[in-house]
Amino acid sequence: MILHDKSSLRYGRLLIACPDQPGIVTKVTRILFDHHANITESAQYSTDPYNGRFFMRIAFTIDSASETLDTLHNALRPLAKAHAMKISLMLPEKKKRMAIFVSKEEHCLLELLWQQQMGTLEAEIAMVISNHPDHQKTVEAMGFPYYYIPVDKHQKDIAEKKQMDLIKDQVDFIVLARYMQILSPYLVSAFPNQIINIHHSFLPAFVGAKPYERAFDRGVKIIGATAHYVTEELDAGPIIEQDVQRIHHGYSASEMKATGRLIERTVLAKAVKWHVEDRILVHDNKTIVFA
Amino acid sequence: MILHDKSSLRYGRLLIACPDQPGIVTKVTRILFDHHANITESAQYSTDPYNGRFFMRIAFTIDSASETLDTLHNALRPLAKAHAMKISLMLPEKKKRMAIFVSKEEHCLLELLWQQQMGTLEAEIAMVISNHPDHQKTVEAMGFPYYYIPVDKHQKDIAEKKQMDLIKDQVDFIVLARYMQILSPYLVSAFPNQIINIHHSFLPAFVGAKPYERAFDRGVKIIGATAHYVTEELDAGPIIEQDVQRIHHGYSASEMKATGRLIERTVLAKAVKWHVEDRILVHDNKTIVFA
Amino acid sequence: MILHDKSSLRYGRLLIACPDQPGIVTKVTRILFDHHANITESAQYSTDPYNGRFFMRIAFTIDSASETLDTLHNALRPLAKAHAMKISLMLPEKKKRMAIFVSKEEHCLLELLWQQQMGTLEAEIAMVISNHPDHQKTVEAMGFPYYYIPVDKHQKDIAEKKQMDLIKDQVDFIVLARYMQILSPYLVSAFPNQIINIHHSFLPAFVGAKPYERAFDRGVKIIGATAHYVTEELDAGPIIEQDVQRIHHGYSASEMKATGRLIERTVLAKAVKWHVEDRILVHDNKTIVFA
Amino acid sequence: MILHDKSSLRYGRLLIACPDQPGIVTKVTRILFDHHANITESAQYSTDPYNGRFFMRIAFTIDSASETLDTLHNALRPLAKAHAMKISLMLPEKKKRMAIFVSKEEHCLLELLWQQQMGTLEAEIAMVISNHPDHQKTVEAMGFPYYYIPVDKHQKDIAEKKQMDLIKDQVDFIVLARYMQILSPYLVSAFPNQIINIHHSFLPAFVGAKPYERAFDRGVKIIGATAHYVTEELDAGPIIEQDVQRIHHGYSASEMKATGRLIERTVLAKAVKWHVEDRILVHDNKTIVFA
Repeated sequence: MILHDKSSLRYGRLLIACPDQPGIVTKVTRILFDHHANITESAQYSTDPYNGRFFMRIAFTIDSASETLDTLHNALRPLAKAHAMKISLMLPEKKKRMAIFVSKEEHCLLELLWQQQMGTLEAEIAMVISNHPDHQKTVEAMGFPYYYIPVDKHQKDIAEKKQMDLIKDQVDFIVLARYMQILSPYLVSAFPNQIINIHHSFLPAFVGAKPYERAFDRGVKIIGATAHYVTEELDAGPIIEQDVQRIHHGYSASEMKATGRLIERTVLAKAVKWHVEDRILVHDNKTIVFA
Repeated sequence: MILHDKSSLRYGRLLIACPDQPGIVTKVTRILFDHHANITESAQYSTDPYNGRFFMRIAFTIDSASETLDTLHNALRPLAKAHAMKISLMLPEKKKRMAIFVSKEEHCLLELLWQQQMGTLEAEIAMVISNHPDHQKTVEAMGFPYYYIPVDKHQKDIAEKKQMDLIKDQVDFIVLARYMQILSPYLVSAFPNQIINIHHSFLPAFVGAKPYERAFDRGVKIIGATAHYVTEELDAGPIIEQDVQRIHHGYSASEMKATGRLIERTVLAKAVKWHVEDRILVHDNKTIVFA
Repeated sequence: MILHDKSSLRYGRLLIACPDQPGIVTKVTRILFDHHANITESAQYSTDPYNGRFFMRIAFTIDSASETLDTLHNALRPLAKAHAMKISLMLPEKKKRMAIFVSKEEHCLLELLWQQQMGTLEAEIAMVISNHPDHQKTVEAMGFPYYYIPVDKHQKDIAEKKQMDLIKDQVDFIVLARYMQILSPYLVSAFPNQIINIHHSFLPAFVGAKPYERAFDRGVKIIGATAHYVTEELDAGPIIEQDVQRIHHGYSASEMKATGRLIERTVLAKAVKWHVEDRILVHDNKTIVFA
Repeated sequence: MILHDKSSLRYGRLLIACPDQPGIVTKVTRILFDHHANITESAQYSTDPYNGRFFMRIAFTIDSASETLDTLHNALRPLAKAHAMKISLMLPEKKKRMAIFVSKEEHCLLELLWQQQMGTLEAEIAMVISNHPDHQKTVEAMGFPYYYIPVDKHQKDIAEKKQMDLIKDQVDFIVLARYMQILSPYLVSAFPNQIINIHHSFLPAFVGAKPYERAFDRGVKIIGATAHYVTEELDAGPIIEQDVQRIHHGYSASEMKATGRLIERTVLAKAVKWHVEDRILVHDNKTIVFA
């Protein structure tokens, strides 16, 4: 389309998951076309074109004067019903609100705050919650609320109750930015596929505590970091992104940690970016990432 | 679709390039649907959704009993005309025929022969042409024709004439697998975007001769390899793929060469694979690679 | 030294391991100097300069007319005794003899044969042993002996006895180039730190069988390969080298395998190269690699 | 040595460059041994063991009660003279003082500030100098002096005179952390091999202005960043470190910039770290990095 005035445009995103079958793309894009939506990005994937599951992400612009997203949503509904299709329609203008959970190590926290301020992270940072007071000054100086909630390991439920009171209805998702506490099923189940953790190893290697020490003991030649959605089983949720860094026999465990920090922060920030841009679909404990 | 019998299926691929505008995907996929084609892969890209150029690659299966590809092609034609659309419809079953040009270094040649025999390279190796006799025995033992055509630098046109006689109408594209002669415009213009070269540097660094020696002199910390389509300007054609390898001050130029060989071969093989699978579109001296 | 004639030079390598303490380097290099050895490469590492363990590799040239290596060895002995030093003195001119064990997948085998013929692998290929007849023709055409020894899983000891008869006193080390049988302690203990295996995962992730299938199921975003010395515990020996390759949700398990092959072969070849160049020392189930 | 009390220890580093010849290591380490220095790290390199140039870096501890570094320095002098040896003896406890020059983009500046505060960068940040006022608040809040010195392109000498007044005798080296002004020979010659620049391309590709825009136009598949010492010729000084990031046809120039920022900062920080740890020697417009 020849665009005369971008100011009246609204942006939208459509995520689709359904059993694969011929004609789906035609039908979906036809409805978008009929509602004067202009597709700006489109990506799709099928686990198997015969009897598999089909996933699609479409980003589009729509002229808000002539059409509303509600109308579009209504138009898609019969199709969704006919094809057992799960559809989600999102407005990027309505930024997702995140809570960042952090313990003592600040590199992942700083990365998220910096990227958000740079404008590369399309999210609203609603609050930072920590079991330590260490970063209060830094976070508040940047204009974000900081809640210090100590965690007594024999009474974790008290802390989690306080956390829940703060985040309930206030945030869309949670980022564990080197938060060194295991969340209880109570919190995890309240945010399905909405809690992103950074694990400081190349999963599934070194699940659990002290991965760098164990990497050192095993004598690996490459270390890694993994961002994943949190599920009830520790470090076993859908992997979103991983990256690695070459090391050698001369690295101590603490040098591994220092090197690892540089990749942990970028891996986590990338996962969060994809999450807020609706680029991730979860299927079968795995992610489809339309990056 | 629920597939009862895969034996009667034919595979097809559709490449599209046209000015971007709303509705294209709907119209194209609608025609495929109407002709009972089942889309198995689809990828698209637009240089700009407003007045940019749109590119799409669709892989599909079609039941040969009920529909022929000619019918499909005919059905697409009016659409192509209406939208100034360049369309190409390919049958993977008709493998592309390649000529491999090689000089003394054999690592890229061996990689292509091996991958083709492994079945990972969906191409027919029509012939190997070399300005040296060195690899005749190896190539013929693997069952491929080998033509030794010496090149006299004062009479390159004689050699190129012989090469052209061999390849004309016999091959679809040419791979320069470390062929250390510069092709004349005569050959280049006969195979537009159909000649793939591997250059042993990270282009645009070190265009031309002796890239490893120059990389050594410059003291770079990473070396690279670049596969690109050949155009009249030396090492300036559309880049298809690049890869790099870390080195350090201790590497001599010849150690750089030995290390470089390991990436040259995989970069070239990847580019050839994408080419024969119709995954590459060229626009504005750049490639769009739907990998 | 100003060198007038390189033809009379002999090359040597010295590996040292001992408790770390001041003065070791001085004492060792002094003896080399007194015997007119010229150091061409030197590398060292200490697990801890206070009460740790010290490792050193020195490559040198010596004028064979004036000095023999035996004399040098004798001169080092008292020092070794005084410092509880383990010393090894090697002559690169005496190439290590290797046996390659392989099953059906040929990519690692081909890489080793090719690199040896290129001259980048300073080893003698004494024989190829396989539990399948598949590669006999290829290997013999390249001039190497091929022994087909089928393995009956209920009578593995019979096959291992035959293997041992072939390799005993005939080879210095063994390379398992995608040999899909687990060696018994009988063979492993006969070649301590002299059997190199390539495992098709990023260890310690996916120890054991079918790593690509399991990587696919886990939904990792990066796959890897690991070369390690074989010990009695499966896939738990000292890691020599690892490398990785990025993948995404669109990769099937078999596409992972195809991609993985490209790194398995280079990781294995690199490990073998370091082994034959005496660049690897083993300590505490880890490797020190002076690459 | 068995260490009873680390508190009285002083750390030292010795850098050596001289014509290669047998016996150097013995002679140098002998002097260290005689002065009760305990070598904790040692690395060496020769451009050619026959008539080449030899480089060595030794880190050691010395008991300050019994020996002073001056005594050691004096003991090394005759050796240095006899072998035309350039020696430098450094005390890590005396941290190098750096001036950071920056323009509008803050990612490299923040990385240096953050790593210095983390303790991974063994340097003193003496001041930040900028031709823009943008980062004054951030830098001063972290406790470092910030000098805003605007640069009029027709009167650059005025700004450089002010910069020189600030840094002269106050800093040991300068880091150009995305400082978008070309330094004049006046400043460059005052800090030979003491000015580190980060260039936002994989040098020698895209020397000069707007490298990402040019990378976009050329259609490269990998972008890079290069840290190098500044010499009079633009972007042609000794390369210290480089790193790269894979991109694809879908990246706009501004997405390349955003991706590039993530590697620029780590490449620059690594180069600065090596510089302050005396790990870099310059020879023939190239660096030897003992990392």
